[in-house]
Amino acid sequence: MREVFQQELAEVSNGLVEIARHVESAMQRAAVAFTTSDVALAEQVISDDARIDELAIALDEHTIEIIARQSPVARDLRLVVSALRISSSLERMGDLAAHIAALARYRFPGGVGPNTLRPVFAEMSRLDVAVARQLVALLDAGNDEETNRIADEIKASDTQIDDLHRSTFDALLSDDIQAQSVEVVDATLASRYFERFADHAVSIAQKVQYLTSGEWMQEKEPSTPVAPVTPGA
Amino acid sequence: MREVFQQELAEVSNGLVEIARHVESAMQRAAVAFTTSDVALAEQVISDDARIDELAIALDEHTIEIIARQSPVARDLRLVVSALRISSSLERMGDLAAHIAALARYRFPGGVGPNTLRPVFAEMSRLDVAVARQLVALLDAGNDEETNRIADEIKASDTQIDDLHRSTFDALLSDDIQAQSVEVVDATLASRYFERFADHAVSIAQKVQYLTSGEWMQEKEPSTPVAPVTPGA
Repeated sequence: MREVFQQELAEVSNGLVEIARHVESAMQRAAVAFTTSDVALAEQVISDDARIDELAIALDEHTIEIIARQSPVARDLRLVVSALRISSSLERMGDLAAHIAALARYRFPGGVGPNTLRPVFAEMSRLDVAVARQLVALLDAGNDEETNRIADEIKASDTQIDDLHRSTFDALLSDDIQAQSVEVVDATLASRYFERFADHAVSIAQKVQYLTSGEWMQEKEPSTPVAPVTPGA
Repeated sequence: MREVFQQELAEVSNGLVEIARHVESAMQRAAVAFTTSDVALAEQVISDDARIDELAIALDEHTIEIIARQSPVARDLRLVVSALRISSSLERMGDLAAHIAALARYRFPGGVGPNTLRPVFAEMSRLDVAVARQLVALLDAGNDEETNRIADEIKASDTQIDDLHRSTFDALLSDDIQAQSVEVVDATLASRYFERFADHAVSIAQKVQYLTSGEWMQEKEPSTPVAPVTPGA
């Protein structure tokens, strides 16, 4: 029974890695679509998002079946419950990649936001792609040391993304910029989507680290800080 | 054993109602803080958000204990897993109420967004408060008929909020408006927060309805539609 359970846990873990790979691909293509105004690629990301949703639902169903059949307790139960939460975050990351693609599609053949912010968005999207790739590695990590190293990398990338998010607002609110309202709206949304994408990755990294360290005994997950990056704050 | 489990399920359900009441209070105060630029009230909402996070974590811990102790299966297992998901959505709704309060705080003593949009935001916040109140009633509903009626009300409110969200963008992008960039940024974020708040309520309503109807057998929860309201779309 125990062996069967371990096998099933491995399946769930592989399922999460698979979804994370789809999210990485979505973000990678969304980043290209966004930075190069590639409308065909944007549409592909948007339509492919349904696949991520399906995979997440299927994995959740599988996980619930395992709980019903195996009645896990203690750490095993934490693992399967975490899988449900991680799949939910991954599903949301897929949505955000699709939102970014949707912005590119709607502004085609133009770009999204004011020209002056293009380098910032290029960097944010590069970092989000890196975060998604790190997430695949995290969920596929072979030991605690690797897990912790990758989790720290994800958090470091998130800090950089938060800084860029803040700089987007600084730029939008500076007197120098002569942006149209449509550019300001788009840039605000794009920056928010890029930032939230990385937030979800950090949330997953924290869950994986809690499981690794056993710290879930006194789990106090910090929720997203209140308005971490408020314009002009 | 069965009786104990029913008692424990009732406790979890009461716990969700309690969190929903806190969320309702947070949104109610955030709405007042936002529409009247009440900085003291805004700060209260922001600091009180930690309480919602604590309650959600405590409820999750309790729910996981119940799964470990009672090894529920079938519908009972669905109920407890849904409780975990619902608490997660409620926690996020609390964050969004705090984000709205944070916008009010940062712009104090001024208001948030261009003057012309004040009536739209007043209406969006009124609807969000109504949605939060409906959510308390939904989680406390005594029978299926009541559940379905309230869930439909929540969805109807969400549709209205989506329309207002769209009208915010129409207004921001119209040539008539002479808004400063800071007003456009704030209005974009505020509208997005109001809209997401109601989205989470709809997501909870769908989960409760699935449980009531037994339709979770072929659960296919539509994820948030891709960029349901894209500026200028």
